[in-house]
Amino acid sequence: PSFMFSSYYYLFKSQIFIQMAKPGKVLSDGKKMSGELFSLTYGALVADMIKDFDDINQVNTQLDKMGFNMGTRLADDFLSKRTNVSRCTDCKQMADTLAKEVIPMYLGVSASISNWSSGDKEFSLILDNNPLMELVEVPQSMSSLNYSQLLAGAIRGGLEAVHIKVFSSVNENPSNTEIRIRFDCILKDALPAGDED
Amino acid sequence: PSFMFSSYYYLFKSQIFIQMAKPGKVLSDGKKMSGELFSLTYGALVADMIKDFDDINQVNTQLDKMGFNMGTRLADDFLSKRTNVSRCTDCKQMADTLAKEVIPMYLGVSASISNWSSGDKEFSLILDNNPLMELVEVPQSMSSLNYSQLLAGAIRGGLEAVHIKVFSSVNENPSNTEIRIRFDCILKDALPAGDED
Repeated sequence: PSFMFSSYYYLFKSQIFIQMAKPGKVLSDGKKMSGELFSLTYGALVADMIKDFDDINQVNTQLDKMGFNMGTRLADDFLSKRTNVSRCTDCKQMADTLAKEVIPMYLGVSASISNWSSGDKEFSLILDNNPLMELVEVPQSMSSLNYSQLLAGAIRGGLEAVHIKVFSSVNENPSNTEIRIRFDCILKDALPAGDED
Repeated sequence: PSFMFSSYYYLFKSQIFIQMAKPGKVLSDGKKMSGELFSLTYGALVADMIKDFDDINQVNTQLDKMGFNMGTRLADDFLSKRTNVSRCTDCKQMADTLAKEVIPMYLGVSASISNWSSGDKEFSLILDNNPLMELVEVPQSMSSLNYSQLLAGAIRGGLEAVHIKVFSSVNENPSNTEIRIRFDCILKDALPAGDED
């Protein structure tokens, strides 16, 4: 279901509601925070989930879902702040928007684009600095944990909120974090009335 | 135990290790991120803890402990970045450092100081904007949840890392977040050899 036009959405069936940005209300423009507290908070969240699930693959799935929900939310936020963004017409534009606008805005780092394949429908976003990993060392015994899966999920969720369906995954390489994105389709049915062309 | 001089510490008995800042290594200086992703991540963490504990008071206690550990860690980070900070000699200086340096650095917002009492040993830090609460609405049924308790714990932990013991609590008022701090004592025994005066 699309959360774009509801006032609230329910996060993980708990009783914490996440309030949606009011249209026109710029929530934190200009407020920038250091990444350390975020990194430690994310570390605590992942640690908590590892306690909850026996299977690391379940943790990966949950991080992906959690990211998807956040991405849906952040897409609204992004559109409310960047009213002059035009609809992407191909994957190159989509990759550019993610690497040059979305990731710098929300993670405070730059991303590069590489490894195009599948007829320019699949690419990698490379983060030389990953704020999620900043203060964290994942032990070798947890090599099946996709620690930054939240980012892949958030990009998938954010794109789905603007009717672009993709597959996404994350690879934590020794020197960088790679988010692999493959375009699937445009979700025509989900377009609001009057917005189709 | 003091974590100041160990290379790693263990977070919540999970298998995620949090790497300590190397002396002289400035981890993320200049990298600033938007508060939205932090707010959503913290919301997910609190939601996860509410699922884990039956009693909201236990959630408050856990958030305080988690904040304490993060504060210990952030004190090291702060000292590695601000090598010209001198030791505070009274509570006014301590309050000033927290309001004008520590909170702006890590939360990206300013704080004011008010309500001095107990012979200038107790005061409030007032956050007009609380990044933790930015996208979150706590339902009335959870009024016993101290949603921002992490901040009170982090300040307690950060000060304890520099041998200042305080009591801290948080009040979420309708128009602001108040972190109440009461000086307890200087932890003389914990001073490193040669550092006492």
